[in-house]
Amino acid sequence: MATCVFCDIVGGRAPARTVYRDDHVVGFLDIRPVTRGHTLLIPREHSSGLADLDPDMGGRLFAAGQRVAAAMKSGALGADGVNLVVNDGRAAFQTVFHTHLHVVPRHNGDKLSFAKGLVVRRDPDPDQTAELLRVALEPDHR
Amino acid sequence: MATCVFCDIVGGRAPARTVYRDDHVVGFLDIRPVTRGHTLLIPREHSSGLADLDPDMGGRLFAAGQRVAAAMKSGALGADGVNLVVNDGRAAFQTVFHTHLHVVPRHNGDKLSFAKGLVVRRDPDPDQTAELLRVALEPDHR
Ligand SMILES: [Zn+2]
Ligand SMILES: [Zn+2]
Repeated sequence: MATCVFCDIVGGRAPARTVYRDDHVVGFLDIRPVTRGHTLLIPREHSSGLADLDPDMGGRLFAAGQRVAAAMKSGALGADGVNLVVNDGRAAFQTVFHTHLHVVPRHNGDKLSFAKGLVVRRDPDPDQTAELLRVALEPDHR
Repeated sequence: MATCVFCDIVGGRAPARTVYRDDHVVGFLDIRPVTRGHTLLIPREHSSGLADLDPDMGGRLFAAGQRVAAAMKSGALGADGVNLVVNDGRAAFQTVFHTHLHVVPRHNGDKLSFAKGLVVRRDPDPDQTAELLRVALEPDHR
């Protein structure tokens, strides 16, 4: 298998701002966030997409998405809503071929349409953002 | 509880072009598709969003999403990719407050950006589209 950057993150061979870990799933900040706190959740076990993702693992990924979404709302990020998104296949805008679930916090009063909200903006302090999420997710980050 | 249009669909009190059914999840065409075949999967049991969705049910919803995605690719719709999307909360563009997973087929060579792809276009023959999906999903539709 060719090198997979997400497998490298799971294995500690590539850096990431991790915010969530359980026995099967790891979560870290997207380096190109569409909003502040935009997190990617990935199964530790490699799969390229929905077709080769074990359905039980899919369920665990989704359950982790629910937990991270709850933390985005309850914690300092103060999200009012959350988008969960899987882009499966190049035609669906997948760019890294290790299955991942986007968890995107949203706020009331965002003047952005969904379309505009997909434009990448820079987070001025992603380390702080990651810390806020970790705190909100305790004890899920260890 | 106020009337819920998706509970009405589950209960057969409101019409829908159903394409998927299992013991816990029902799938039907979105009446405002972003692409042809755009399907909504909903738990039969009412929840308003991720916060009150039982995580086991979330797993079943996601697993159903994998099956419908596979059928969109293998069947006559000929999808090259699929987006799975949950919009949780008004700030995240949720409009019906019964948890639902969007399953959106995508095609290579779509000239559309993700943003443009979210613009609603009309399906000239949604009954045929539903039938194509049902056939690809046999025996999941009964
Ligand atoms: Zn990988
Ligand atoms: Zn309902």
